[in-house]
Amino acid sequence: MGDLEIRPATAEDVPAIVGMLADDPLGAQRESPDDLTPYLIALDRLTADPNQHLIVAIREARVVGTLQLTIVPGLSRRGAARAIIEGVRVHTTERGSGLGTRLIEWAVETSRRENCQLVQLTSDVTRTDAHRFYERLGFTPSHVGFKLQL
Amino acid sequence: MGDLEIRPATAEDVPAIVGMLADDPLGAQRESPDDLTPYLIALDRLTADPNQHLIVAIREARVVGTLQLTIVPGLSRRGAARAIIEGVRVHTTERGSGLGTRLIEWAVETSRRENCQLVQLTSDVTRTDAHRFYERLGFTPSHVGFKLQL
Repeated sequence: MGDLEIRPATAEDVPAIVGMLADDPLGAQRESPDDLTPYLIALDRLTADPNQHLIVAIREARVVGTLQLTIVPGLSRRGAARAIIEGVRVHTTERGSGLGTRLIEWAVETSRRENCQLVQLTSDVTRTDAHRFYERLGFTPSHVGFKLQL
Repeated sequence: MGDLEIRPATAEDVPAIVGMLADDPLGAQRESPDDLTPYLIALDRLTADPNQHLIVAIREARVVGTLQLTIVPGLSRRGAARAIIEGVRVHTTERGSGLGTRLIEWAVETSRRENCQLVQLTSDVTRTDAHRFYERLGFTPSHVGFKLQL
């Protein structure tokens, strides 16, 4: 396989990102790849915010992975910032290639550089493969993740 | 009991907020109420960020509760923003008063006003009372929360 590049997402990457978000048992029900307008508006908002890092992984000129890292300042833990990982997706053709690990390693390194003391994420209880993956990377399943749809 | 006011936190509230963060089985090990400098620096960063809402609840001129709400834009779910609740604390003298419910209701209403489609939070697996509290308020424990200390 060719070399991998990890870089900030641009508007040109949005169709591929949305394709990956939708190509997922949970995502299929809640995305609209045929209308990219809301995604492009969201990208503008992310790009303007220095605490947001939406990145893509590129191999042989194709978008093969994505992840969003949010830096959250806060008072607790002596004024520590934390980092939150959301929207991790790896293209089906790249499963088992180590790309997921590369993406998470990028997120952890960036969190360190931004002086975060903690990296956190939540994963749907049904994604048991993902849970083993995060535990292998050193994450601890120490919390219950609660959600409320509005 | 007197009326309750919920408003953005200011530097004058920091000693009381840190006191509540430290007055907790988990928080006692990781806070430093004798040195407020890192907390005041963090407050400045929060105040400058329009996606951050650090609020306090005031009763009879005393800080009796606090919560941090972070608005996180994103591409997934058709460009939906989500809101993340962190650092919920209720003063020991207010336990059972309904203040926790008032704080979470404030967070949910603010999230709606900011056009979020989801409110989420994580709670340490040992805080079983908190889990019952969030379920009573309509939150679903649908996720596993992973953390990595840096």
